[in-house]
Amino acid sequence: MPDTAPQTIDDFTALLAEERFALRHIGPGPAERAAMLRALGAADLDALIARTVPETIRSAAPLDLPAALTEGEILDDLRRYAADNEVKRSLIGLGYHGTVTPPVILRNVLENPGWYTAYTPYQAEIAQGRLEALLNFQTMMAELAGLDLANASLLDEGTAAAEGVSLAHAVHKGGSTVIAVAADLHPQSRAVIATRAAPLGWTLEDVAPGDAGAIEQAKPFAVVLQYPGTTGAVRDLSDEIAAAHRAGALAIVAADPLALTLLRPPGEMGADIVVGSAQRFGVPMGFGGPHAAYFATRDSLKRHMAGRLVGVSVDAAGSPALRLALQTREQHIRREKATSNICTAQVLLAVIAGFYGVWHGPEGLARIARRVHLAARLLAGAARAAGLSIRHDVFFDTIAIEAGAGADSLMQRALGAGFNLRRVDDGCVAIALDETVTAAEIATLAGVIGGAADAAASPLDALGRQSAFMVEPVFHAHRSEHAMLRYLKQLEDKDVALNRSMIPLGSCTMKLNATAEMIPITWRAFADIHPFAPMEQTRGYRALITRLSEDLARITGFAAVSLQPNSGAQGEYAGLLAIRAFHAAREEGHRDICLIPSSAHGTNPASATMAGYRVVVIGCDRAGNIDLADLEAKIAAHAGKIAALMITYPSTHGVFEASVRDICARVHAAGGQVYMDGANMNAQVGLTSPAAIGADVCHLNLHKTFCIPHGGGGPGVGPIAVAAHLAPHLPNHPLRPDAGPSTGYGPVSAAPFGSASILPIPYAYIRMMGPDGLREATAVAILNANYIAHRLAPHYPILYTGANGMVAHECIIDCRHFQAEAGILVEDIAKRLQDYGFHAPTMSWPVPGTLMIEPTESETKAELDRFCDAMIAIRGEIADVAAGALDRVDNPLKNAPHTAAEVMAATWTHGYGRDRAAFPLPHVRAAKYWPPVKRVDNVYGDRNLVCSCAPLSAYAEAAD
Amino acid sequence: MPDTAPQTIDDFTALLAEERFALRHIGPGPAERAAMLRALGAADLDALIARTVPETIRSAAPLDLPAALTEGEILDDLRRYAADNEVKRSLIGLGYHGTVTPPVILRNVLENPGWYTAYTPYQAEIAQGRLEALLNFQTMMAELAGLDLANASLLDEGTAAAEGVSLAHAVHKGGSTVIAVAADLHPQSRAVIATRAAPLGWTLEDVAPGDAGAIEQAKPFAVVLQYPGTTGAVRDLSDEIAAAHRAGALAIVAADPLALTLLRPPGEMGADIVVGSAQRFGVPMGFGGPHAAYFATRDSLKRHMAGRLVGVSVDAAGSPALRLALQTREQHIRREKATSNICTAQVLLAVIAGFYGVWHGPEGLARIARRVHLAARLLAGAARAAGLSIRHDVFFDTIAIEAGAGADSLMQRALGAGFNLRRVDDGCVAIALDETVTAAEIATLAGVIGGAADAAASPLDALGRQSAFMVEPVFHAHRSEHAMLRYLKQLEDKDVALNRSMIPLGSCTMKLNATAEMIPITWRAFADIHPFAPMEQTRGYRALITRLSEDLARITGFAAVSLQPNSGAQGEYAGLLAIRAFHAAREEGHRDICLIPSSAHGTNPASATMAGYRVVVIGCDRAGNIDLADLEAKIAAHAGKIAALMITYPSTHGVFEASVRDICARVHAAGGQVYMDGANMNAQVGLTSPAAIGADVCHLNLHKTFCIPHGGGGPGVGPIAVAAHLAPHLPNHPLRPDAGPSTGYGPVSAAPFGSASILPIPYAYIRMMGPDGLREATAVAILNANYIAHRLAPHYPILYTGANGMVAHECIIDCRHFQAEAGILVEDIAKRLQDYGFHAPTMSWPVPGTLMIEPTESETKAELDRFCDAMIAIRGEIADVAAGALDRVDNPLKNAPHTAAEVMAATWTHGYGRDRAAFPLPHVRAAKYWPPVKRVDNVYGDRNLVCSCAPLSAYAEAAD
Repeated sequence: MPDTAPQTIDDFTALLAEERFALRHIGPGPAERAAMLRALGAADLDALIARTVPETIRSAAPLDLPAALTEGEILDDLRRYAADNEVKRSLIGLGYHGTVTPPVILRNVLENPGWYTAYTPYQAEIAQGRLEALLNFQTMMAELAGLDLANASLLDEGTAAAEGVSLAHAVHKGGSTVIAVAADLHPQSRAVIATRAAPLGWTLEDVAPGDAGAIEQAKPFAVVLQYPGTTGAVRDLSDEIAAAHRAGALAIVAADPLALTLLRPPGEMGADIVVGSAQRFGVPMGFGGPHAAYFATRDSLKRHMAGRLVGVSVDAAGSPALRLALQTREQHIRREKATSNICTAQVLLAVIAGFYGVWHGPEGLARIARRVHLAARLLAGAARAAGLSIRHDVFFDTIAIEAGAGADSLMQRALGAGFNLRRVDDGCVAIALDETVTAAEIATLAGVIGGAADAAASPLDALGRQSAFMVEPVFHAHRSEHAMLRYLKQLEDKDVALNRSMIPLGSCTMKLNATAEMIPITWRAFADIHPFAPMEQTRGYRALITRLSEDLARITGFAAVSLQPNSGAQGEYAGLLAIRAFHAAREEGHRDICLIPSSAHGTNPASATMAGYRVVVIGCDRAGNIDLADLEAKIAAHAGKIAALMITYPSTHGVFEASVRDICARVHAAGGQVYMDGANMNAQVGLTSPAAIGADVCHLNLHKTFCIPHGGGGPGVGPIAVAAHLAPHLPNHPLRPDAGPSTGYGPVSAAPFGSASILPIPYAYIRMMGPDGLREATAVAILNANYIAHRLAPHYPILYTGANGMVAHECIIDCRHFQAEAGILVEDIAKRLQDYGFHAPTMSWPVPGTLMIEPTESETKAELDRFCDAMIAIRGEIADVAAGALDRVDNPLKNAPHTAAEVMAATWTHGYGRDRAAFPLPHVRAAKYWPPVKRVDNVYGDRNLVCSCAPLSAYAEAAD
Repeated sequence: MPDTAPQTIDDFTALLAEERFALRHIGPGPAERAAMLRALGAADLDALIARTVPETIRSAAPLDLPAALTEGEILDDLRRYAADNEVKRSLIGLGYHGTVTPPVILRNVLENPGWYTAYTPYQAEIAQGRLEALLNFQTMMAELAGLDLANASLLDEGTAAAEGVSLAHAVHKGGSTVIAVAADLHPQSRAVIATRAAPLGWTLEDVAPGDAGAIEQAKPFAVVLQYPGTTGAVRDLSDEIAAAHRAGALAIVAADPLALTLLRPPGEMGADIVVGSAQRFGVPMGFGGPHAAYFATRDSLKRHMAGRLVGVSVDAAGSPALRLALQTREQHIRREKATSNICTAQVLLAVIAGFYGVWHGPEGLARIARRVHLAARLLAGAARAAGLSIRHDVFFDTIAIEAGAGADSLMQRALGAGFNLRRVDDGCVAIALDETVTAAEIATLAGVIGGAADAAASPLDALGRQSAFMVEPVFHAHRSEHAMLRYLKQLEDKDVALNRSMIPLGSCTMKLNATAEMIPITWRAFADIHPFAPMEQTRGYRALITRLSEDLARITGFAAVSLQPNSGAQGEYAGLLAIRAFHAAREEGHRDICLIPSSAHGTNPASATMAGYRVVVIGCDRAGNIDLADLEAKIAAHAGKIAALMITYPSTHGVFEASVRDICARVHAAGGQVYMDGANMNAQVGLTSPAAIGADVCHLNLHKTFCIPHGGGGPGVGPIAVAAHLAPHLPNHPLRPDAGPSTGYGPVSAAPFGSASILPIPYAYIRMMGPDGLREATAVAILNANYIAHRLAPHYPILYTGANGMVAHECIIDCRHFQAEAGILVEDIAKRLQDYGFHAPTMSWPVPGTLMIEPTESETKAELDRFCDAMIAIRGEIADVAAGALDRVDNPLKNAPHTAAEVMAATWTHGYGRDRAAFPLPHVRAAKYWPPVKRVDNVYGDRNLVCSCAPLSAYAEAAD
């Protein structure tokens, strides 16, 4: 009935507040929270937090952030930022081009939680859909490049080139420290390589395009070329590549994939590595990212390649199945022996680029390329008709017009007509055409140039591509939208993502990616902005980036933020470079010891190595905490050399270490800086902060704590926040002065602001939650984790707890004893969970033989209970094996997962029932997920490495 | 390799044309088309068309439409229309209110092909998801109304009220022809009732609100009241309802569902029928539609209720299962005995409104209502503080301010501040508040009014709702976005929609609903426009409607178009009213015979009856064509009385009748008009036209031929196109003079332009296809149908073919003989197709015991082949039954569909294998769809009618 009490606008506002977004983001409602708190014996959330977070680091004050907005208000707010961007037609090039995301892909992949909320495909059986999509991408890229294989994407073209350089160094035998760089490399790629080279003592030597002699003379270990060159020139690279090989170097070519549909591929010219951006294959420019870079190489180098690689294997039934190949080779597993800290990919964007290839097929891509090339030829004709010369006679999509004194005027006239061109140098203006250019625009541009659009014969004949590419059936089968729609749906349906069930991945914080946060990223005013568009056209982005940086500074307690790093690992690296620069500026550049606890993420030592540091490992005590005695001993042993300590907080063991401030103080006393790994930031926001625990710098995983979806394994965003003394030492960018301090050390990413187009997501999250909502989320994340620990403790030992027996936002359950008791491995539990409809928790990390469970605040008690019920039921199955009620070999755990085909085959030979196999709990029957394959055989796949998509039947035969 | 030939802008344009949208919309590519033509022995498409479409009606000239646009160009084009709409805050009311579509519902339902491409849930087993969503809607609406049950939605509030009136007449025993209408009914509802009453000889009598005596005096058969009244007044309706009952009338109350969360529901005051719009439950205003209306009534009247009703039943395994209840009662099946021609619902919109209820729950809806009510109270306080009186002291969300001479100025000041208010009359301005109103807006509006926002006590106490509503678990279980997301996904996954496989429904044209066509409809500039917003704010919509009308006129060959009808049946009705008005204007109003072939859609006679016509049925010959002799005989028998002939072309038997021009000529000679049912328009576009065959008026199903998705059973759009002599007799609208000719007969829909917000879809389709693409689509639709007929003919007799043995765009296969041979019914085949992953073709219509298959142009040959393979395999199963290899009772057809639970149960007792049950063909295994229930028991459900969502377990028990 009507409530007569409220009578004022304040009452109205209070009513509105009852509908706050935080109540939708956070899973458990009041009744569920109360029940969980009761189970834990805590009076309320505050009491629970008091028992969990050490008082010494607990924040009393609320976060200094604006009050929460509703979903409607945030969309209005972001519309205002969008309106401050000006969407012009950017024909700037430099590796970023206008493109059409096919609407069927836009809506059914990029805007579909079935794709964007998925996790990295480590659990291959429930990731066959995105693995197939990535295999498409790999196949397409390898064939375009003319090489044997390509990986599942890297962060951007600049870092992909740098990874190529690192690979070259790793296999180099001649002792060179020189990288020869063609002068027509995109400037941002050169800058990223330079940043990467500096701490390792490598030097760059610029060589003129085409000057093979200069390459040989430089005696490099790596040569980096661009194809076509940054201002559009196309030349045969064979001589330069041959010179590189004579010098004992690897030849790395950064190549435009669209050009490769028409041009002889670098692989056929002898290149060892071909990299590039797949952005123009359907991924919006988005002010610089995220996009997928590709990395292709020869078979002989595959085991040195950084990044993820999808391979074809077979499952336990002998059927073809996909999975990540060569995982033991992953750089982050190799710790300080790694030559790269890459542990992620741009999966969602690689998936889109791969589907773009599926949608167009080779003939469609080549047609687009011919059209773009014709547009360039028509404008070249216009320039010549206007009496202007073209700098490079042989070009693909970019023409460099020698406009002399008329260059300013040409730029201005183009801008007046709505086009951004590239000012190459004083007299030269480049125009990079793309697939979105219309006939009318060509006519307009010809008018701007001052001549009639008319084309001479193509200058590319001599370099024309002869070899076929994308010959596999998948690139020829889905030309109609219905066919494509159903293909996308079939792949999506194979996978488990957050739209099916919780993904309780310790350390990965798979929380809600709310729709209201996702909606703005595909708005044109965010999507269609070139990263090097004029400053005055990007005011909205700049303001958004500034506000988000300020918010993150307040949340971390730090002074400054750089949003440039594209992943957590890249954030680690960027943060360590800041520390390195800080020491150097104080003339303490000799400090080169980086202390890292044994429990650290594998990327920590890898990043430290890349930053030129020597890694010294600190032991942990039995409770999982840093061993203070060992810390003291190591500090003493390396007195005067300590550069940094890297810690994770709460620890990777999932507890709040009470001694953290003391630890930081000791490192500071030794002259070192403290780097905090932000992986577990979801346990801190609003309760404490990196500054409060005593750190100097941290990275944040915006794709964990701040709601950027994991996208099936990327994009990630790993900004770093630093105390004031480190602020002058943040990354910056040669093409965008406001992207970092002038005193910065250069870029770590190709784009000035990293993955700018997805920054509306964390911004919207922070604004919609408000200071109270953020704190509440952290508290409920801790509540949920402790509730799981409480329910599972009678069945599985909880490996580590804090002072009051509490865990932080995740808990590690010990499964090591099951091997002796029942022959059951942690992997068996993980695979069996798939039969129950769940993605496994983090497996065997940080402790082998354990599972690390992180529910996040977004899961309801009902979902936590379903998960706990599944875990407890599995524990019962293990007990049955131990007791002999189930066979030690033929049991539901060893045979997991069970496919539909298997469970309904005519013959059923197992010692347990079909029902027990497929429907082990009632909730499973209500919404059964069917794993499409049985357990994938990793050993077979690595021994018979296939990482492109020939017809799957071929592999099925091979397996027989 | 590069193509050196193209050198001009024209070459560029030609390259671009190779990427035309038509190639994505049309399924078969060049190779597939060639193979199908080869199979049919036709040299090319033209040759095929020459063999199929009679030369007498074939168009030589291409359609006079602009050349095709790309997907990018159409989005730019529609952005221009959108930019010509001005999005102000419309507080106009009149049944249309601002609302928030929860983003999780927006993206995962309204923008998700899994929901919007689904068909009407006639095949219940593969529609359990949307049936559950509709059951939520029914439950919510019945409980809000305080009545026993509600249907699955009607077209809009106005037509729902008219349906209530028709029901009242059907059950009325006193011979009254009077409808008493409260003077505070929304004017558009009154107008729709008036249109409906006229041909049936019913009269409207307006009674003052609250005047029970006047009601009794009017001796009506129906009384129609509004709650709250159109200008906001809330009063107890008990006396008026009692008066209605004393007079022998039913009491129909049109009620705002949001108000019902706080107010005593009309059902508790004795109302027999409660109707209303569910628009403000999360469905954008969209310039008038589409929205779902609800219709609730007492149990005793349920068998008289028009529209669809979802009911709970059990499946063959005794599990609870949903399906459409009382289908034999459906009005379109009762033909000329029907009292309504309703055969559709606003499913997608009802689904959204139902999910809005699930998302907010009763406490959330009531909170929103309290907030909206408080906003109204605050502004009422502002008006009083400014010295203005309020017309109605008791109000919910709408206040009517007596502004006297200041009314103009108040409207202007509000507009200046960005608000549209409602000018009720000379001195009165109404403000209708909604859930999107913010505190800041209240302050602004108070300023506009001239007083401080301050609220007196709620005036609603005496009428406060005491009864609980939405008590079922589903309205309490999904408060977090993750929980909601997964609930939506689980329901979606139960259903077969076009994103899984073809839906080959004869007469329903389930073609591609392209993403590029769907994207614009959720843009704010289309979504957030009030239907009665000032003309100058809706220029973009008006221009779009004008252009689309012109396009449709060119395609049909007619002179004028009305887009107002919201369904095909409503189009039939509107077209017949035009014919009726034409005759009346020529003083031939005595013509009252409507000739209808026996093969017609059931809606044809129902519509004719509603238009006041007597139906005379014309027989068909053995070939399925109209029996010319019978036609002549009937014309002769009713000489001078022939008003109209209704025909479908190509005929409902799926052939182009060569005699159609002759038939039309004979009717014209008899003084009649020819109405063409547009259901089969997909076989005509670009090849012939309704005008070319000799018709005077036709309706079009934009949700068939012109790509508006079926939405799971609505929305539909059924515009009518008329020859010049009928143009003065189109519908119009009392509140929007430009919605039709001033000589028109009034509105058939509540909104001036019907379902305006989805008109960008057909507009985009027509523009992207262009004249050539549209013609090509029609030709391929015919090719696809003939290819299916060709492949199936050796296995199933093709019932009807045209002169050259060709079918049109669909074909009927005869299954009648299987009953004698093997005991197999057409239903068994339909259900068995579900095991193969397909939705059944149209079953037993127009000929019992047959299947009518329409593939549309959007299906690839590969998909047609999969479907034909399934049909042929099923034919083999039938043969096995006939031969005794399969049992006549226990066989895969009779037991179909097979659920996962059944196929993997421990015991398997059938005489065929589990594999044969579930994976009868290899392609099924690759992407298996699992029906969630076995065959649904319709008889049980109709005998034990339950149509609200109490816990399903209750029904499971009942079934035991």
